[in-house]
Amino acid sequence: MKTEVDLNCDMGEGFGQWVLGEAPDEDLMALISSANIAAGFHAGDPNSMDRVVKLAQQYGVGLGAHPGYRDLQGFGRRYIRTSAEELVNDIVYQIGAIREFGRRYGIALQHVKPHGALYMEAAVNEELSQLMVDTLQKTSSDAIIFCMGISKTYEVAKRLGHPVVREFYADRDYDDTGSIVFKRQVARPDPQQIAAKCLRACQEGVVRTVDGNDIPIEFESICFHSDTPGALEIGRAIRSTLTENGITIAAAATVLERAS
Amino acid sequence: MKTEVDLNCDMGEGFGQWVLGEAPDEDLMALISSANIAAGFHAGDPNSMDRVVKLAQQYGVGLGAHPGYRDLQGFGRRYIRTSAEELVNDIVYQIGAIREFGRRYGIALQHVKPHGALYMEAAVNEELSQLMVDTLQKTSSDAIIFCMGISKTYEVAKRLGHPVVREFYADRDYDDTGSIVFKRQVARPDPQQIAAKCLRACQEGVVRTVDGNDIPIEFESICFHSDTPGALEIGRAIRSTLTENGITIAAAATVLERAS
Amino acid sequence: MKTEVDLNCDMGEGFGQWVLGEAPDEDLMALISSANIAAGFHAGDPNSMDRVVKLAQQYGVGLGAHPGYRDLQGFGRRYIRTSAEELVNDIVYQIGAIREFGRRYGIALQHVKPHGALYMEAAVNEELSQLMVDTLQKTSSDAIIFCMGISKTYEVAKRLGHPVVREFYADRDYDDTGSIVFKRQVARPDPQQIAAKCLRACQEGVVRTVDGNDIPIEFESICFHSDTPGALEIGRAIRSTLTENGITIAAAATVLERAS
Amino acid sequence: MKTEVDLNCDMGEGFGQWVLGEAPDEDLMALISSANIAAGFHAGDPNSMDRVVKLAQQYGVGLGAHPGYRDLQGFGRRYIRTSAEELVNDIVYQIGAIREFGRRYGIALQHVKPHGALYMEAAVNEELSQLMVDTLQKTSSDAIIFCMGISKTYEVAKRLGHPVVREFYADRDYDDTGSIVFKRQVARPDPQQIAAKCLRACQEGVVRTVDGNDIPIEFESICFHSDTPGALEIGRAIRSTLTENGITIAAAATVLERAS
Repeated sequence: MKTEVDLNCDMGEGFGQWVLGEAPDEDLMALISSANIAAGFHAGDPNSMDRVVKLAQQYGVGLGAHPGYRDLQGFGRRYIRTSAEELVNDIVYQIGAIREFGRRYGIALQHVKPHGALYMEAAVNEELSQLMVDTLQKTSSDAIIFCMGISKTYEVAKRLGHPVVREFYADRDYDDTGSIVFKRQVARPDPQQIAAKCLRACQEGVVRTVDGNDIPIEFESICFHSDTPGALEIGRAIRSTLTENGITIAAAATVLERAS
Repeated sequence: MKTEVDLNCDMGEGFGQWVLGEAPDEDLMALISSANIAAGFHAGDPNSMDRVVKLAQQYGVGLGAHPGYRDLQGFGRRYIRTSAEELVNDIVYQIGAIREFGRRYGIALQHVKPHGALYMEAAVNEELSQLMVDTLQKTSSDAIIFCMGISKTYEVAKRLGHPVVREFYADRDYDDTGSIVFKRQVARPDPQQIAAKCLRACQEGVVRTVDGNDIPIEFESICFHSDTPGALEIGRAIRSTLTENGITIAAAATVLERAS
Repeated sequence: MKTEVDLNCDMGEGFGQWVLGEAPDEDLMALISSANIAAGFHAGDPNSMDRVVKLAQQYGVGLGAHPGYRDLQGFGRRYIRTSAEELVNDIVYQIGAIREFGRRYGIALQHVKPHGALYMEAAVNEELSQLMVDTLQKTSSDAIIFCMGISKTYEVAKRLGHPVVREFYADRDYDDTGSIVFKRQVARPDPQQIAAKCLRACQEGVVRTVDGNDIPIEFESICFHSDTPGALEIGRAIRSTLTENGITIAAAATVLERAS
Repeated sequence: MKTEVDLNCDMGEGFGQWVLGEAPDEDLMALISSANIAAGFHAGDPNSMDRVVKLAQQYGVGLGAHPGYRDLQGFGRRYIRTSAEELVNDIVYQIGAIREFGRRYGIALQHVKPHGALYMEAAVNEELSQLMVDTLQKTSSDAIIFCMGISKTYEVAKRLGHPVVREFYADRDYDDTGSIVFKRQVARPDPQQIAAKCLRACQEGVVRTVDGNDIPIEFESICFHSDTPGALEIGRAIRSTLTENGITIAAAATVLERAS
């Protein structure tokens, strides 16, 4: 039974003239407690980063780097076969960029959440997770890593004593193994249904799978995606449902601190 | 009559499999006191940045960001018409990336030197220079700006009291106005001739122009380019000629500090 | 008094996951007679090109290459200072890509229309226009060049006897010199008003300027932009207004042929 | 016992200011009969393509497109997980660009050879090979596909009756399965040894593997790489050794034609 949870969302995932998702960044920023900001490799450019980091400062939202594969065309959703060293260099680069915009607006880096295929690769690639966490311990020992509960990333971070947050995916379905089921979005999801799912996960620690079973789920942060149709309504429904039920939305750093 | 001068060189200007210049980075790094490291927009990728920043740490060389226009094909040598805001966002982004690799190896950012057409644009564009210096004062009030002595960048930095270093171009020719003469390299320059030119500039404060006249020149750092044919021999000649004549090669931060 | 005019629109101006404009490509394609298809430098990727070229084939729309500056972030709207040779190489490259997708679907290249800042640069840069037309005469002597009536591009094409079409900008304002007035879009333009403007231009050969005067305007094609708010309604209004007034919408090649 | 063989080489694999390999393009072009020209995704830009295609025309060398993954940083040597449709769109795009420069200089496309990881992926991915060959049959039924003898690409092309050429890798080692052994280049290879290996392959149809055994090898073209150290000497040694032994170097199209 949670009394506090982080609410995170990917932000700034446009590029140049292009935007992703229908919701204005300001409106989303007003709802969440942690923002994962695209850093230029799968999406995001210096202009969007400047704008979104400034918004994070204005709304008191935890600043997160959202590094991805160098793949604008594929939006970082395509696996690229390469070494852990190369990928961690990519991650360092992107973290640095986000952190610098944070410096500009006087806010520190709160967290790092790899994006898309890089997030999924880190989840199963122990060498990559190990090198990423090792590196973060040198550059940002207090920067929280966001990952799935069932992942090498989580195992490695816990083993090395690095701050880590597990995510619950509000707008994705789970299967009986606790894995996320990827599917092409067919219909606009129901915000209230998503909010109810989040509330149950917070209160009972379970989620109903696509197979119709309840499985236990552990997490410190709820994630929804700014490009899910109706993202704004989803974020509002989650926020109001949780707060009406006595669960505070707080930045990941606060949630972790209070838990320790 | 100088007793101390900085020696800077552009480094890490390859991309992926491609390298620029014939001299090994290690050999160049052993000669210089400040490195301007390409940060991904005109050249450089996270792998080269990681490698070169690590070398800077090993050789005790001042760490510099070398931000350029977003133009890999044109190597940042093509002017792109856009707003000062957009260019400064590009600069912030690239500085952050370099700074983060510095964090990885425990060295702080010493300086910022815009590259190529961006350097030249800042030299004549007061709005751009102003916004760049203003921004640096927020993010890195001690990060030295490298520029030409005759430039808006220098004027603005002095006016705002931001640390600034003027450069003397060892492997470029000057005209009677004190401007650099750009020309296609025809022959391999003579390292001893270049070294003698540097020594005279340090000792007498003058440089012979392409028109055959001596003009006064003020600077705190000597720049040579890693892609000038014979760069290594040029660097060696400059270093040995200066030191044999009692002029110490010292990082820009040291030179500035001692001067103040 | 025209009885026939071409109606052209920029198409495929997304990149990867990103789209530009709100109107579905199919719906726009059903309205127009010539499509200017983004070819990868300012927008467009091989997937969008494949999709949009196939649509052009299905709807019998004239296939056009829409080459731009290599500038995804700036959407090709930023001038880049470089040689005419380099720009024409960029144009050749992008034309080739579009033409190849045309081969895939059995349609030939009808026209070439440079995009954004490259279109504007060609309009004033005689050397660039000359080299572009010279090159097209070698590679595609029947590929029509789209340009403004008041432009070096038009002068050069006429002088060299290369097929050329002048455009009337439906969703842009003119000043008394016949130049287009660029301004940030403030309000959603009125489709009927735009359609009436097009009809008058076709019937009377004049357009009302922002200064309130009527100036003569010559053109063979009407252009509207797929990212203008309400593009679909604008396209529909133009098409229905013109056809209801006895003016046929026909591909540029047909319009030119019939005129000769 | 061959009397004729094609000699192919990757060309134009620089980008912007960067070049790959030490040998001047002109010198290499004088030795070979087919050129695989980088088309912008893993290497090559419109300027290099223009220059190299013009050289191919001047030296009467068969014009080939060398499409790769969209991966400048990784030089197309990193596998990217995506659909066959997307990859074939990438291939179509790059072929079109090369073909257009051919149009400019009056030469037709002779062949298509995927590059690096895309070549290797096509070799094992039947769906990709099938879609690539199907597509080529629509756009260029006479464009020869270059591939390894042991590959899905070869199987599919033969099955569909599409012109295909198998390659013998002069500067790579084979193992007992007939596969190429990838290893980091340690020493500068001996041109005479490579030439002798090629001669034996042409005369006896066998190659000595890294395991010390002779295996049969079938091919119509010999490939060497312009970035192998000593590429020029290797090319010269192969050419002179073969011609001195009565084997003519002829473009792939000629070799195939004569064989049929």
